[in-house]
Amino acid sequence: MRRLDSRSPDFQAQLRALLAFETSQDPQVDAAVAGILAEVKACGDAAVVAYTNRFDGTQAQTLAELELSQHELKAAFERLPAARREALVAAAQRVRQYHERQRADSWSYRDEDGTLLGQQITPLDRVGVYVPGGKAAYPSSVLMNVLPAHVAGVPEIIMVVPTPRGEKNDLVLAAAHVAGVTRAFTVGGAQAVGALAYGTETIPQVDKITGPGNAYVAAAKRAVFGIVGIDMVAGPSEILVICDGGTDPDWVAMDLFSQAEHDEIAQAILLCPDAAFIERVEASIARLLPTMPRRAIIEASLANRGALIQVADLVEACEIANYIAPEHLELSVAEPEAWLPRLRHAGAIFMGRFTSESLGDYCAGPNHVLPTARTARYASPLGVYDFQKRTSLINVSELGAQKLGRIASELAHGEGLSAHARAAEMRLK
Amino acid sequence: MRRLDSRSPDFQAQLRALLAFETSQDPQVDAAVAGILAEVKACGDAAVVAYTNRFDGTQAQTLAELELSQHELKAAFERLPAARREALVAAAQRVRQYHERQRADSWSYRDEDGTLLGQQITPLDRVGVYVPGGKAAYPSSVLMNVLPAHVAGVPEIIMVVPTPRGEKNDLVLAAAHVAGVTRAFTVGGAQAVGALAYGTETIPQVDKITGPGNAYVAAAKRAVFGIVGIDMVAGPSEILVICDGGTDPDWVAMDLFSQAEHDEIAQAILLCPDAAFIERVEASIARLLPTMPRRAIIEASLANRGALIQVADLVEACEIANYIAPEHLELSVAEPEAWLPRLRHAGAIFMGRFTSESLGDYCAGPNHVLPTARTARYASPLGVYDFQKRTSLINVSELGAQKLGRIASELAHGEGLSAHARAAEMRLK
Repeated sequence: MRRLDSRSPDFQAQLRALLAFETSQDPQVDAAVAGILAEVKACGDAAVVAYTNRFDGTQAQTLAELELSQHELKAAFERLPAARREALVAAAQRVRQYHERQRADSWSYRDEDGTLLGQQITPLDRVGVYVPGGKAAYPSSVLMNVLPAHVAGVPEIIMVVPTPRGEKNDLVLAAAHVAGVTRAFTVGGAQAVGALAYGTETIPQVDKITGPGNAYVAAAKRAVFGIVGIDMVAGPSEILVICDGGTDPDWVAMDLFSQAEHDEIAQAILLCPDAAFIERVEASIARLLPTMPRRAIIEASLANRGALIQVADLVEACEIANYIAPEHLELSVAEPEAWLPRLRHAGAIFMGRFTSESLGDYCAGPNHVLPTARTARYASPLGVYDFQKRTSLINVSELGAQKLGRIASELAHGEGLSAHARAAEMRLK
Repeated sequence: MRRLDSRSPDFQAQLRALLAFETSQDPQVDAAVAGILAEVKACGDAAVVAYTNRFDGTQAQTLAELELSQHELKAAFERLPAARREALVAAAQRVRQYHERQRADSWSYRDEDGTLLGQQITPLDRVGVYVPGGKAAYPSSVLMNVLPAHVAGVPEIIMVVPTPRGEKNDLVLAAAHVAGVTRAFTVGGAQAVGALAYGTETIPQVDKITGPGNAYVAAAKRAVFGIVGIDMVAGPSEILVICDGGTDPDWVAMDLFSQAEHDEIAQAILLCPDAAFIERVEASIARLLPTMPRRAIIEASLANRGALIQVADLVEACEIANYIAPEHLELSVAEPEAWLPRLRHAGAIFMGRFTSESLGDYCAGPNHVLPTARTARYASPLGVYDFQKRTSLINVSELGAQKLGRIASELAHGEGLSAHARAAEMRLK
C-alpha cells in the first residue's frame, strides 16, 4: 500500500494521480444497450422475456411468470433465521425514522398586496428500483432505495432484480417485503431499465429509476435519462479515514478493508499526522489481511488505489478531505464536532472512534447511496428529496397585478418579448 | 390552430402525438462538441480564445481581454434608463425574497443511546452560469440563475456570455451587476462550458454549471456531467391554460402567445369545458395575431404544436394536465385553490385570472427555470436546493455501537461482506 507525505514537493500531483479514475463510457456497451432499449421500446414484454431468457438462462414464456408475488416476498422473509429477520426489521425501522426527517412540506405566504407565493411538494407517482443480482446482491440496497420513496409518499414502487439461472436471493426478497415494494419482477440488465422507462404490457412505466447496476445498467440509465429521472451513476466505493492517532489501529485497518472488499477498484485512504501510528496501521493491515475471506479483492484494491498519507496536522487533513470530497469520511478523532465546520464536501461523515462506516452502511439511519468520485462537491446522498418534487405557486392579486405588471412589462420590452409585455399590460387597470 | 375534443375516441392518441417531441441528440453536434472539449481540456486559455475568435468574430489575444470587470457591469447598469434600472432591481429583490424561503438548514438529533444523526447543509464552492448571447439574451435568466446560488451561499459565481462580434447587451451586464456575479467572461458555446468544467489558466474550474444554451451548449453540458454537476437540459417552452370560460378571452390568447413567441417549437395549449369560450379565444387569436411583432414565430408555434382542447369538465382538465405535466400551468378559473389538490405535476402553477405567466417569468418571485417535456413528473424548478448539498452525519455512541454493531454484523454476514461485519464487531465490548 503506497505511503505519501503531504510535505513532499510533488504531493499535489501524487494526490491527483491517486484520485484519477477514468469513468469513460464504453462505446461497445453503449451500442449494445441502445439495441436492447430500442427492442424493448418496440416489442415490450416479448423483448424483455427474450433477453432475460438469453442473459439469465431462464425459460420464461411470459413476463407474468417473472413477477414475484407479495406472498413469495413474505415467504422469503419468514424463511430467514430469526436473528437475520430481526436485524432486517431493526435496520428498516432506523432508516425509516431518519428519512422521515427529510420529508419536505409545502409552504406559501402572501405579500403585502395579497399575492400568494408558495412551493407545493408532491411525491412522484411511480418509481422503479433496480437491485443487482448475482454476486453483488445487497438487501441493504433494497432498504436504502425503497424506504426513502415510501417516506416521500410514492404510491407505487416497482423493483426489478435479475435472478441468473433462476437463483433467488432470500435476503433480497425479504428486504423487498420489509421495505414494502408494490410489485417485483425477476428481470435485470438494460432490458429491465428499458421496461421501466418505456413501460411494457406487464411492467408499468415509471417516472424515475434508482439503484446501482453493472456497466450495462449504468449505460441504460444514462440513455433513458430525460424520459424518466435517474439517480446518480455511481462510481467505485471510497473511504477516507482522518485519524489523530488515538484509535485502535486494528479498527482503522478493518474500516479501510470494509471499503476495499467491495471491489478491486474501490479506494481506501488514511490521513494521519502521526508517522508512528501510520506504521501501526500498516502492521495491523499486514496481520489482519491473511484472515479476511475477501483477501484477494482487498489486497488488489489497497495496492491499486489505496494510500496511507502523512499530513502536517488535522487542519491540513480537513483541507485534503475537501479536495477529495469522499463518499465516506471517517473522522476518527478525539473531538469530531470540533472539526466538522472545516469539512465542506463528503457524502457522509462518520464521527468518533465508534462510528465504523459499516454501521452507516446498514442501520444507523442515513442512506448508504452516496455521491462518489468527487461528486460530493455538488451532489447529496439519496434521500426523500429524490422522490418528492416541487411546483411553484403564484396567485397574483388584482392589486399585485398592477405593481408586478409594470415591472414585467418593462423587462419584457427590454428582452423584445412583446406578448409577455402585453399579457402583463392587459391586467393593468 | 388545431382543435381537439376529449370525447373523441382517438383523443388519447391525438394527445400523445401533440406532446411527442424528439429530443434526440445530433451525433454531428456531439462529435463537434467532443472535439472542442478535448481541445479546451488540453490547451486551456489558448483553445478558448481561438474558438471564441472563430465563432464569435472577435480578435482577442488573451482570455484576460475577454473578462468583464465589475466596473463594466456597473457602468452598464448605470447607463440603463431609470425605469428599466428600477424594474431590474425590484424584480431581483422579489426573486431573492422568495428564494430565501428555500434555503435549507442543517439538522441533527440524538437517539435514545446518545447516537447523533443529522444532515449538514453546505453550499457549493463555485458555480458557472451560462447566459446565451445574441437573439435569446435574457437578463431575467441572469437573475433566475445567479440569485438562487447567491441565496444558497455560493461564494464564487462565474458568468459566461458570448458576445458575437463583440456586441454586449447592456441589460444582461446590468443584471449580472444586480445579481452579483463574482467574475464574468464574454465567451460562449461548448468552449465556455469546457472552460468551466475543466478550468483553464484564467477561468477557474466550477462545481456545477447551470443556464440555458443552444444545441452545442446543451451537448457540452451533457458531456461534462459527472466532472461537474449540471442543471436540467431544457426543452422548448410550454404553457397549458385551464380556463373555466370566465376569463377575458384576449387575456387567454395573449398568455398563449407569450409562450408561443419564444420559439416555433414552443407549445401552447388551452383546456376548457366551454365550446363557446374556445371560439371566443379563437376569435381573439385571429384579431390579436396581426398586431404582434413576433407574429411569424407565434403563428408557426401555434400551428405546429398548439391546441385548443374541449374537455368534459375541470376535473378532466386536471387529469389531462397531470398527464401533460406542463412547464407553466395557468389555472384561470374562479376558485383556483379548490383545484390545486388535484394537480400533481407542473413546473409552476399560475393561479387566478390576474396571474399571467409573464408575471412569473420576470418578477413574482419563483424561478422561471422550470422542468419541460413532461419532466415535471419528477423534476423541480431551479432553486436554492440546486446550489446546496447534504452530507449525512453519524456519531455513534459507545452504547449505540453495541446495539447497531450486532445488527450490522448480522446483515453484513448475510451479504458476505466480512470486513464490514468485523469492523462492527471490533467495537463490541
